[in-house]
Amino acid sequence: MIYLDYNASTPVDPRVLDVMLPYLKDKYGNPSSSHNFGIACRAGIEQAREQIAALLGCEASEIIFTSGATESNNMVIQGVAAVSPKGSHIITSRIEHSAVIEPCRYLEKQGYTVAYLPVDRYGMVNPEDLLKAITPKTVLITIMHSNNEVGTIQPISELSRIASSRCVLFHTDAAQSVGKVRVRVEELGVDFLTVAGHKFYAPKGIGVLYIKSGRKLEPLLHGAGHERGLRPGTENAAFIVGLGMACMIASEVIETEGQRQAKLGQRLFGGLKQAGLAVHLNGHPEKKLSNTWNISFEGFDAVTVMESLSGVAVSPGAACHGDLCEPSHVLAAMGTDPALARGAIRFSLGRETREEDIDEVVEKLKKGLGRQCE
Amino acid sequence: MIYLDYNASTPVDPRVLDVMLPYLKDKYGNPSSSHNFGIACRAGIEQAREQIAALLGCEASEIIFTSGATESNNMVIQGVAAVSPKGSHIITSRIEHSAVIEPCRYLEKQGYTVAYLPVDRYGMVNPEDLLKAITPKTVLITIMHSNNEVGTIQPISELSRIASSRCVLFHTDAAQSVGKVRVRVEELGVDFLTVAGHKFYAPKGIGVLYIKSGRKLEPLLHGAGHERGLRPGTENAAFIVGLGMACMIASEVIETEGQRQAKLGQRLFGGLKQAGLAVHLNGHPEKKLSNTWNISFEGFDAVTVMESLSGVAVSPGAACHGDLCEPSHVLAAMGTDPALARGAIRFSLGRETREEDIDEVVEKLKKGLGRQCE
Repeated sequence: MIYLDYNASTPVDPRVLDVMLPYLKDKYGNPSSSHNFGIACRAGIEQAREQIAALLGCEASEIIFTSGATESNNMVIQGVAAVSPKGSHIITSRIEHSAVIEPCRYLEKQGYTVAYLPVDRYGMVNPEDLLKAITPKTVLITIMHSNNEVGTIQPISELSRIASSRCVLFHTDAAQSVGKVRVRVEELGVDFLTVAGHKFYAPKGIGVLYIKSGRKLEPLLHGAGHERGLRPGTENAAFIVGLGMACMIASEVIETEGQRQAKLGQRLFGGLKQAGLAVHLNGHPEKKLSNTWNISFEGFDAVTVMESLSGVAVSPGAACHGDLCEPSHVLAAMGTDPALARGAIRFSLGRETREEDIDEVVEKLKKGLGRQCE
Repeated sequence: MIYLDYNASTPVDPRVLDVMLPYLKDKYGNPSSSHNFGIACRAGIEQAREQIAALLGCEASEIIFTSGATESNNMVIQGVAAVSPKGSHIITSRIEHSAVIEPCRYLEKQGYTVAYLPVDRYGMVNPEDLLKAITPKTVLITIMHSNNEVGTIQPISELSRIASSRCVLFHTDAAQSVGKVRVRVEELGVDFLTVAGHKFYAPKGIGVLYIKSGRKLEPLLHGAGHERGLRPGTENAAFIVGLGMACMIASEVIETEGQRQAKLGQRLFGGLKQAGLAVHLNGHPEKKLSNTWNISFEGFDAVTVMESLSGVAVSPGAACHGDLCEPSHVLAAMGTDPALARGAIRFSLGRETREEDIDEVVEKLKKGLGRQCE
């Protein structure tokens, strides 16, 4: 099997597992306990908080651990709304993950209003659209750092500058970016930022919400005083420690892996073209995650393309139910030709991807789709 | 070190770790993915759901995975309130964990009303008090299965019968009970039940909410459709699989361990009495968790007692801040003499506790406190 679905989930790095194991074996104390078992567990958590803060360029006290990106996104969106008057206004984009869109839709039912900004054909939000959308009632802008389907990276610094010039809080869901590109909260100028562990070689079930010092929100969970009262519940010590290590590793390899995966992706896209397939790249050609290659195959829908890819794990870039493929909400918002959108496949590369894998994938598609063209 | 703080957290059973490891190594697919990596991961999750359902005596479809007991409790309390009119009424007890009390307090600020039932000197809720507290506006009753500090087990079947006779939903926080005593949702007659993995040899960061078929609540998190839309977010596959194994193991050893730990606890309490220490057992003498021994040492506050317990991990049964000990809210609600409450220590035993550990603890206390009495 060839795995090209790293945007869906990544393997746990063996070094991440190594640092987690003591917390699944001997360091079993409750980190809130004052005895040695508790202290040992607490120490690991606080060290990890420092490691994550180092990757993001913030203070450790600005890091809150959550169960993952969905919780982090809900925590900001619902939490800022809860400390704002009913009828307040939120701005997001049409290409967000459902973990942003759905809490926004929920708030609409609660009496808040939400603007969903359009994107251009590359999936890019226009800062002027944001500026125009802000009203005196706008309390939060939430726009993803990079898109999970097409990889397009938004001009977050520019967007957040507009937000802060209007005294509006800014959140970015960086679930798909952290660990793949440098994400520094100060450069981005954001108030809140979401991190997902399992997108960069830490396990599923751990995430982070960066909350800039002084920013207020109502917690989603109420209980004991964990995480400065913002996120009660006994901490997932093992995964927190693992996430810390994942940050350390990412920090070392982001640039080299980014370049290596960019080349592999170009080899894939170029190989398909050379094979005579009519392929189209969805998303921004340059301002995108270098591991994410969302490719449409002219004349084919995603289900047919995937039939040629037996033994290769990829995600359809279309919303397929059985044999029926519909354009994804992201490609629809980008105005992609529906016929092309129905044939989109997301190839997402990772640290284990090798040239041979790419060549094999090209070969399979050449055989499978090439024959059907003849 | 002797660990007698199993109610705070338990070690992960090696068999639990064993079944988790493949999900932290090779089975890294996203369980929502349709390729083989996803399918393998999904299979583990669904098998675990069956194992948990088997322990609780319910359908697998009634099991929702969460990040832990705090989330499960919040999900029920906030979720039932959200589908009920503002001004609705909730009933709980004065001795609940903060993960129940705090969401209730939060709802009070939102315009809901909450009744906090008293308990008797054993920490027991009186069913007649519950009956009297129900109003036409009552939508939810949430009373813990067993108390984390003193171990008292509530008459949940009787309480839930009262609830259902008045068409009020009933939730029990069984975080401290599941894995220690048989907890069968049908016998209990509850609509919702909270489980915490790390209280019975699964890791910290995983929990369950049992939702009886047909019962409605508003989800806390909004996003993709995971867990029947009730709890979106990529599943913590490794810990879910571990929790399933923890349920299998618990099912085998609950009775034998319950009896063994009861004897060890009697050895502890009896040994302290024999040593001439004026000790008092807090909580119900029989209707309690057999591993939980909350003991007050007449004439001493908890900080002093714990000084004699160096090398032993226990929790103070009082709320100690530095050298100042105040009665815990549980012992205060039970009307425990404040002087005694300030000297309470919670010894909570577990599967690794041996007679020698107990004897050593008795010896330490005899030495430490006996001398000070002379």
